[in-house]
Amino acid sequence: VDHGELSQFLGTLVVMLSAAKLFGYLAQRVGQPAVLGELVGGVVVGSSVLGWIDPRVPAIHLMSELGVVLLLLLIGLETDLRKLLHVGVSATLVALAGVVLPFACGYAACRLLGLSNLVALMAGASLSATSVGISARVLADLGRLDTAEGRIILGAAVIDDVIGLIILTVVAGVAEGASVSWGSVAWTAVLAVGFIVVTWVVGRLVVPFLMLLAWRIQLPGTSTIMALILAFGLGWLADRSGSAVIIGAFAAGLLLARTPDAEEIEKGITVLGHFFVPLFFVSVGAAVNLRTLNPLDPAQRWVALTGCVLVVVAIAAKFVAGYAPFWFRGDKRVIGVGMIPRGEVGLVFAQVGLSSGVFDQGLFGATTLMVIVTTMITPPLLKHLLAGAPSPTRPAESEGIEDLVMTP
Amino acid sequence: VDHGELSQFLGTLVVMLSAAKLFGYLAQRVGQPAVLGELVGGVVVGSSVLGWIDPRVPAIHLMSELGVVLLLLLIGLETDLRKLLHVGVSATLVALAGVVLPFACGYAACRLLGLSNLVALMAGASLSATSVGISARVLADLGRLDTAEGRIILGAAVIDDVIGLIILTVVAGVAEGASVSWGSVAWTAVLAVGFIVVTWVVGRLVVPFLMLLAWRIQLPGTSTIMALILAFGLGWLADRSGSAVIIGAFAAGLLLARTPDAEEIEKGITVLGHFFVPLFFVSVGAAVNLRTLNPLDPAQRWVALTGCVLVVVAIAAKFVAGYAPFWFRGDKRVIGVGMIPRGEVGLVFAQVGLSSGVFDQGLFGATTLMVIVTTMITPPLLKHLLAGAPSPTRPAESEGIEDLVMTP
Repeated sequence: VDHGELSQFLGTLVVMLSAAKLFGYLAQRVGQPAVLGELVGGVVVGSSVLGWIDPRVPAIHLMSELGVVLLLLLIGLETDLRKLLHVGVSATLVALAGVVLPFACGYAACRLLGLSNLVALMAGASLSATSVGISARVLADLGRLDTAEGRIILGAAVIDDVIGLIILTVVAGVAEGASVSWGSVAWTAVLAVGFIVVTWVVGRLVVPFLMLLAWRIQLPGTSTIMALILAFGLGWLADRSGSAVIIGAFAAGLLLARTPDAEEIEKGITVLGHFFVPLFFVSVGAAVNLRTLNPLDPAQRWVALTGCVLVVVAIAAKFVAGYAPFWFRGDKRVIGVGMIPRGEVGLVFAQVGLSSGVFDQGLFGATTLMVIVTTMITPPLLKHLLAGAPSPTRPAESEGIEDLVMTP
Repeated sequence: VDHGELSQFLGTLVVMLSAAKLFGYLAQRVGQPAVLGELVGGVVVGSSVLGWIDPRVPAIHLMSELGVVLLLLLIGLETDLRKLLHVGVSATLVALAGVVLPFACGYAACRLLGLSNLVALMAGASLSATSVGISARVLADLGRLDTAEGRIILGAAVIDDVIGLIILTVVAGVAEGASVSWGSVAWTAVLAVGFIVVTWVVGRLVVPFLMLLAWRIQLPGTSTIMALILAFGLGWLADRSGSAVIIGAFAAGLLLARTPDAEEIEKGITVLGHFFVPLFFVSVGAAVNLRTLNPLDPAQRWVALTGCVLVVVAIAAKFVAGYAPFWFRGDKRVIGVGMIPRGEVGLVFAQVGLSSGVFDQGLFGATTLMVIVTTMITPPLLKHLLAGAPSPTRPAESEGIEDLVMTP
């Protein structure tokens, strides 16, 4: 037991929570969602500016990942599965178009800029995946989860996350020189989808039993802990079967939403979320390193150019993908904008590109710029688009995901 | 971002939370406090039996330490400082007697058993420190924090923790062959006490400001997060000044107990505690390695003898220390028994002894036996002693520390 290690950990948590609250508050004062403030706060305390926290420290990284797991559990708890399935075709189309378009356009643009085939593939891949955490949090902040647009974004972002993982596996393999067969790609996809089906079947059998157990134990907080056990367990299972951890957490939420304890669980998870969720967004901000971008350095002009091209492609392609369900009568601009943020997923691609040697520092910087811009513009854009829409139907005093942050 | 690492972390949390709930429930079914079940659950899933979890993994270790930090924050929130100071002299006497008696008797017993001077010193030291977490949790489980005996145990255990850290610093120095001057020991003690005074003065200035900020931000959960920032911040500060992290957390609780938001903070921290506190007790159980004890091995008979001697001294000396405030009219047996558990603090001493080479595997095993027995017998003993006492005055429906686990 190294007591210095514990106090360093506590110090890091103090910095992260303080940055989240301070910048979240400031963001709201200028009319922006709190999540934008948390991201900016992360940039400030991260390696770009102050260098006070390093989100790659395992304990910090894992705690912040618990934040996005809890966020997806909460969102699952608040999602009506039937309504979600109702927009299933639209969401799937948005997800597919939202992966294919940025990938193809990003690849083409990079080839036009004279980059090699492999680099262009990697750059295209890094444009493909939406960060479901950021989209979901923004919708929750704005109280728009329970709208047709909100459900399409959520469904598409979740599907997108699975596709993103498959692409990452393939691209990482190609970058390391392995030959990737269509068969193995198809198998990864089958496993990921299979998990969701198996989870659902197993979950429907296990959940009533778990809730009966919680009721037998009859101690305060037991149903919340049971929900955590289910969410973490399904997250673990999802990962083991090649799907994404957050899919497991989201599935747990959907399953628990149907139980009598749903309301109590939601209250408990919301309180845990107040602690863990901001850690996630501060971590995402802190993982960005602005120092890879230096516009004053003449050698960086090319990086700036590439970065700007990536930014434009990243925004335009996801925005257009929002129009894929052409028959949808709601606001397609909201869907497109909701898919724009790349967040921590984009940073993972950039990191894989750099560490495999496919990206040099310049292209790593350009990808980082794309991640920063797409992540930061979404909250204000969404808020602007939704400002004219009718106000949400949820009663203001309800507990839950909107509580994580409400606009004043 | 290594997704395998995340899913392994989630798997570990699932095992720890499940063990805590399952064994906690079983303990209560046989009329024992849930914390005993959590400790046993930890032993079962730890390296002794199943080997499913390793509490030395940094992220797991730090999460479980957050559990004891939150526990002490909660206990501070529920403690009336004036009533605590009222038993200050008694608590200090119990703490001093509870360190000196076990140390002296343990040293003498080991010398009689033919052990060297250094080994006997180390063994005596490992008998000296009470685990405040276990005493406090047992009292909370039984609803006896707000009694004169409860306050004396709590105060004595907190003071004891500071003395224990000083002894650990000295003994670790001696074990490494460094010469330790009385001056440096006195300086460590002055720093530790000085921290408490400084914290109090600074805290009284900072807390109203923090609460004003929380009120300005006006987002749900802000006051709970402010409380965490204060507790983690003071814990960090305490560690940096040579005192114990938990002293900082306890001080934060005392300071916050006087604010208008105390009740809301208590509710929020209680929910967080439902998650983090059991992780601490499962970790303590999992850190024990029963395999160092093998009564069937003839060579181990000496270890068993030494272990039994240490157990007897450990229990008797702390029990007698409970009689130090001879004028106290309440039940002195409760105080003595409340000081018996050595928990994770005893394991730290055993570990320092082993890694510095002062203890061989045999003596390490004997110390482990002492820790297991003292930790495990306290919950049932305390419950037995308090069974005849008048029931606590707290209303049954109150939120807070008793909620962490209540006896059915």
